[in-house]
Amino acid sequence: MQTELQKMLGLELPIIQAPMAGVQGSALAIAVSNAGGLGSLPCAMLDIGQIRDELGRITEATNKPYNVNFFCHQPPAVDARREAAWRNALKPYYDEFGLDIRDEAPVEDRAPFGAETLEVIQAFSPPVVSFHFGLPADDLLQAVRAMGSKILCSATTVEEAKWLEAKGVDAIIAQGLEAGGHRGMFLSEDVTTQIGSFSLLPQVIDAVDLPVIAAGGIADADVVAAAIGLGAAAVQIGTTFLLCDEATTSDLHRAALKHPSAAHTALSNRFSGRPARGIVNRIMRELGPLGDDVAPFPRASIALGPLRKAAEARGLTDFTSLWSGQNASGCREIAAAEMTRRLAQKL
Amino acid sequence: MQTELQKMLGLELPIIQAPMAGVQGSALAIAVSNAGGLGSLPCAMLDIGQIRDELGRITEATNKPYNVNFFCHQPPAVDARREAAWRNALKPYYDEFGLDIRDEAPVEDRAPFGAETLEVIQAFSPPVVSFHFGLPADDLLQAVRAMGSKILCSATTVEEAKWLEAKGVDAIIAQGLEAGGHRGMFLSEDVTTQIGSFSLLPQVIDAVDLPVIAAGGIADADVVAAAIGLGAAAVQIGTTFLLCDEATTSDLHRAALKHPSAAHTALSNRFSGRPARGIVNRIMRELGPLGDDVAPFPRASIALGPLRKAAEARGLTDFTSLWSGQNASGCREIAAAEMTRRLAQKL
Repeated sequence: MQTELQKMLGLELPIIQAPMAGVQGSALAIAVSNAGGLGSLPCAMLDIGQIRDELGRITEATNKPYNVNFFCHQPPAVDARREAAWRNALKPYYDEFGLDIRDEAPVEDRAPFGAETLEVIQAFSPPVVSFHFGLPADDLLQAVRAMGSKILCSATTVEEAKWLEAKGVDAIIAQGLEAGGHRGMFLSEDVTTQIGSFSLLPQVIDAVDLPVIAAGGIADADVVAAAIGLGAAAVQIGTTFLLCDEATTSDLHRAALKHPSAAHTALSNRFSGRPARGIVNRIMRELGPLGDDVAPFPRASIALGPLRKAAEARGLTDFTSLWSGQNASGCREIAAAEMTRRLAQKL
Repeated sequence: MQTELQKMLGLELPIIQAPMAGVQGSALAIAVSNAGGLGSLPCAMLDIGQIRDELGRITEATNKPYNVNFFCHQPPAVDARREAAWRNALKPYYDEFGLDIRDEAPVEDRAPFGAETLEVIQAFSPPVVSFHFGLPADDLLQAVRAMGSKILCSATTVEEAKWLEAKGVDAIIAQGLEAGGHRGMFLSEDVTTQIGSFSLLPQVIDAVDLPVIAAGGIADADVVAAAIGLGAAAVQIGTTFLLCDEATTSDLHRAALKHPSAAHTALSNRFSGRPARGIVNRIMRELGPLGDDVAPFPRASIALGPLRKAAEARGLTDFTSLWSGQNASGCREIAAAEMTRRLAQKL
């Protein structure tokens, strides 16, 4: 039995591979789409040329539907007080690793969706475009719709889901608190508003007249079936794909996911400036996972970058964003196509 | 089809009414047990005489299984620094309400399970005894077992579940982060260890060879069926019973649960000294829901009590613990027996 969303998107399976900037590219998306799910290309850390190249690879390798994902944050004004507080918090680590506090990593290119990005995707008219941290300006959104792309966006509260429905999206991704990576929250910065997947999903389904995609903590075929049974139109799954052959997850990140300590994750703004869920590591433990003494998104990574690089060179994940949801137990070192089929096998 | 736990406890339905100190007594427990679920009597805020009286009422009114619940915390040594910090934090509110900061509410009697409590329940040999915040000392636990009572205890992490299995409990309540009221956490005080129900449940089921009861955010028959479908031996449900006729939930608390703002809850230690989930209110917003500047459990209520009383007299819930889980949408003003049957209707 196909859900309404499967029909709308032309999906064989109601399995969406969550876009995960930094740990995957076109290869994972292609594998999942070709297996009957919806593969996703995360563009948040790609420049215009890279987006074009990756979309070229996808359209060459599959004629199945795929999803292209963008961040929609407001780039921050530079906040001298917070920049200084962040460098001050990191200073002891710079000293420990023998680094110069004046060093800077180039900021990871987390540019929000804009006119240039629109132009490059217009050459491909991707079947699905998804957004995180809200939506782009109305004219840009209208231009995406005019390409014929179906539009998905993350909601982390009932309020955000209603807001997105009013904006005319085609389906809503209900991102539960269990999810790895960045919280898609955009109407509030208060993390206490964020709720568990199986509390969020039924309340969003009740609140809107759109297909609702369950995301967050969905680790295996049984939980997939539970979510679909509760009325989810599809599931969006990230963490469970992180050890798959086609993911570009680093060796250090893979080792962390396989370790029992992956059971302890936290929301932290220490890596990018926005709350995102990852495995608890040294910087989260010592500075606290959340704090105001951090440069605003995405600028936190500028001062953190040199530390991350120096520590990783020593085999340490002290400053590495080890994104993971609250249930990494479904991760397997297998092909993503096989994982996609396994996740759907109880439907 | 009956679960193993239903057979063990002699339950018609795999529905456990969560013990909720302060908002229910024997009447709710009796109604749920007589409807085929497992009613629970919370004893955390009852003195010995009250426990005896309530057990007398239950055993008069039902011959079905019932559960008696106790807290197992270590009573704190008085911490002068934290007591002073707490009074200091509350001082402006005392001034606002025209109260004398030297006033004290009698501490709510949250005595942990001990020899005296054992003695009073030995007269009844309750079919089920459940514990929160860990277990009592081994000799006490052995004495409970010797009565023939089945022993349940809350686990909030896989680690706690394994610890409880080693101690010989009969079943584990996997309390997800969505749950209202006090977190049962006892091996860690770090709230980032707490995870969502549908991430916790499968991981606990995998980790132990005991029946596992799902708790936290289970608001209606569909979610009950989803939890049982995932292998839960039963569900434990609190919030959804809070508006039932037999609950002693105050009018102010009932009004809060019916208001749309019930959608926003947070874990707070401002009411008792331990993290517990309730609807966000003034004290949580102004002091922050969690802080170190609070007297340790259960002594926070001593200085908060006069404020709560004064505010409630004016119809304000500024200082009231409005316990609720992350999904209050299932609450109905109906008899608890009817609610119990409704919750089981998709099984």
